[in-house]
Amino acid sequence: MPSISKKGNAMPQSPIRKLVPFAENAKKKGTKVYHLNIGQPDIKTPQVALDAVKNNDIKTLAYARSEGSEEYRNKLVEYYKKHQVNVTANNIIVTTGGSEALLFTIGSITDPGDEIIIPEPFYANYNGFSTASGVKVIPVISKIEDNFALPKIEDFEKLITKKTKAILICNPGNPTGYLYSKEEIQKLKEIVLKHDLFLIADEVYREFTYDGLEHTSVMALDGLEQNSIIIDSVSKRYSMCGARIGCIVSKNEDFINTAIKFAQARLSPPTYALIASEAALDTPQQYFDDVKEEYVERRNTLITELQKIDGVKVANPKGAFYCVVELPVKDSDRFAQWILEDFNYNNETVMVAPASGFYSTPGEGKNQVRIAYVLNKKDLIRSVEILGEALKQYPN
Amino acid sequence: MPSISKKGNAMPQSPIRKLVPFAENAKKKGTKVYHLNIGQPDIKTPQVALDAVKNNDIKTLAYARSEGSEEYRNKLVEYYKKHQVNVTANNIIVTTGGSEALLFTIGSITDPGDEIIIPEPFYANYNGFSTASGVKVIPVISKIEDNFALPKIEDFEKLITKKTKAILICNPGNPTGYLYSKEEIQKLKEIVLKHDLFLIADEVYREFTYDGLEHTSVMALDGLEQNSIIIDSVSKRYSMCGARIGCIVSKNEDFINTAIKFAQARLSPPTYALIASEAALDTPQQYFDDVKEEYVERRNTLITELQKIDGVKVANPKGAFYCVVELPVKDSDRFAQWILEDFNYNNETVMVAPASGFYSTPGEGKNQVRIAYVLNKKDLIRSVEILGEALKQYPN
Ligand SMILES: Cc1ncc(COP(=O)(O)O)c(C=O)c1O
Ligand SMILES: Cc1ncc(COP(=O)(O)O)c(C=O)c1O
Repeated sequence: MPSISKKGNAMPQSPIRKLVPFAENAKKKGTKVYHLNIGQPDIKTPQVALDAVKNNDIKTLAYARSEGSEEYRNKLVEYYKKHQVNVTANNIIVTTGGSEALLFTIGSITDPGDEIIIPEPFYANYNGFSTASGVKVIPVISKIEDNFALPKIEDFEKLITKKTKAILICNPGNPTGYLYSKEEIQKLKEIVLKHDLFLIADEVYREFTYDGLEHTSVMALDGLEQNSIIIDSVSKRYSMCGARIGCIVSKNEDFINTAIKFAQARLSPPTYALIASEAALDTPQQYFDDVKEEYVERRNTLITELQKIDGVKVANPKGAFYCVVELPVKDSDRFAQWILEDFNYNNETVMVAPASGFYSTPGEGKNQVRIAYVLNKKDLIRSVEILGEALKQYPN
Repeated sequence: MPSISKKGNAMPQSPIRKLVPFAENAKKKGTKVYHLNIGQPDIKTPQVALDAVKNNDIKTLAYARSEGSEEYRNKLVEYYKKHQVNVTANNIIVTTGGSEALLFTIGSITDPGDEIIIPEPFYANYNGFSTASGVKVIPVISKIEDNFALPKIEDFEKLITKKTKAILICNPGNPTGYLYSKEEIQKLKEIVLKHDLFLIADEVYREFTYDGLEHTSVMALDGLEQNSIIIDSVSKRYSMCGARIGCIVSKNEDFINTAIKFAQARLSPPTYALIASEAALDTPQQYFDDVKEEYVERRNTLITELQKIDGVKVANPKGAFYCVVELPVKDSDRFAQWILEDFNYNNETVMVAPASGFYSTPGEGKNQVRIAYVLNKKDLIRSVEILGEALKQYPN
């Protein structure tokens, strides 16, 4: 029998995936499961995007241009301008989600054995894309006590080797909800310039910033033109995760010309989704204001409720729609399974994402979970109530 | 300035891509360009698929399941049954086009430095996906004189090393139009069983077989369950290339469980396209009969017209919608550029794909081009007329 490759075996399983059968079993037994575990918002997609697809008059559903149409990229240029990012259409490659943007980026700048430094906890699939490219993730730890602020630059310095190709940040952060300040981005600028590294910023949550704080893009800084790469996506911005449209933005021509070769090999991003994404750029500002208001309320509700539970510590998220919560348990993987398998509170339970999947340092985050506040306020309150009851009953 | 990786530099450019600026220039000068160079059919997408998208009532465009929904995969099971392939939903992973199916497959079964044997000429992007995974393509040459039939099994044997992980075939073939017989597939079965290799069959043109010939899938053969993998796609079957839906089919559980990890990392195939693809499975048989009739007529027209030109040799395609044509020129790359740049016939010209991009043995196919018969009969006749005139005038 032919065998799987080492790489295939090394591909990580999604940290949530192993809990899915337990959630399905709970549902089969008639238990309602509140999903705090996924980044799939319940927010409606802008009508203008949905309508554009419904009103399409396609007769032959043809390939789109590998890098996205001139028109769409030109409209993106206008969008970025409003966000202090001045680029041209040639600086943009449209991808099949932020996921593919990450894959093409890592493929373009690394060879097997190379290293990418990432503050942890980080978006778990960075592991998958790195493994797929044979790249080693070098974690630099950020702490719940500091709200997951940028680690000290010395901590990065210590980890840089000849094999280091890039520093990858997520801003605002999944799973941390942390929003890097302009000063923090400045510090990253200095270190990548000093060591000739790429600075990759996953900015898919750009719009989701709270408490009057502003997002600073890595491409808004002068002097970083050859080093900075933005990973972007329509998934969260317009609550259209199922579209599968994202993009890569960079002023580094060599990089863009290389990433385009990956894009050409896979022919085209999805055509219907491009129609939706192009139309979504006309979403009225009111939509974003409403969504932001909703998320701020949800966050406030979630944090307030969580803080009522004994022994729970929670980082205060300033962006995105996640937070990392420390629970009074030894092993949150087991706890997350237990609340699905052996627990219910009036026939209801919750699913959370154990944080260990967001760390690559073994043993880190063992008592943490990630909670996504993608449910409405009422459900959030009820979910935390269930979580509190579970913690009382859990045989630690 | 940070630099691109060796892999990034090694990524091949699409063989047609370098001609694009010349085609654009020709158009700017007012010359009409007939595109014989691409696999984008002008055939209409089945109405049932288009309507399903237009009539969708999505409010929140959510992620689909990473491996595709149970419903869609169950419907695919029925589809495959009609094509002598007996599988279950668990043997299928839905992908973003056949392109992604290839990428996940190569990622799952190879490590950098491993080898895959492919009869050449082959679909050019096999090079891109292999390079992206650090894999070496080992070509085994098939000849225009034999209509590009399967090379002798001894030729494969000679190339098998410890690093060989798979034999990859395209059936029916792009660019050759060759349809492998059951006997040829049997021979491949024996050699992959003997050497414990995977047999990957890109069957995206399964329906496009002519002259009463039947397609033999690698998964229709007994005894090959652990070795065979199908790469599939809705792109050509339903003329919906822009959907970006394909799939991987295999009974090898280890392989499927590995490929799913790649699928999970990228989250989801495109949701609108899934709606179209699921609906497309209800396309009436008449659609396929009509399409087939159309392609047979086009093929016959193309071949008849080409054979009228002195010095032109053409392989007789039995499937797909391409053929490889030998021209009385030394360097078809130059010729293809010249007809766009320096030639026109009553303000019209043609774009063809130089065949060198479909070979990985240096120097092979230098006097060949690939012609896609994706245009209507009238345009095909005119295109060949222009080609004939160009060959007369070409300063060889
Ligand atoms: C931080 C981050 N980056 C990238 C992605 C990928 O998203 P997509 O491929 O849907 O654009 C996600 C999705 O959850 C994410 O949270
Ligand atoms: C032989 C072959 N395989 C795979 C593909 C990839 O097609 P898609 O990604 O659109 O499914 C193509 C497209 O032309 C092809 O010709």
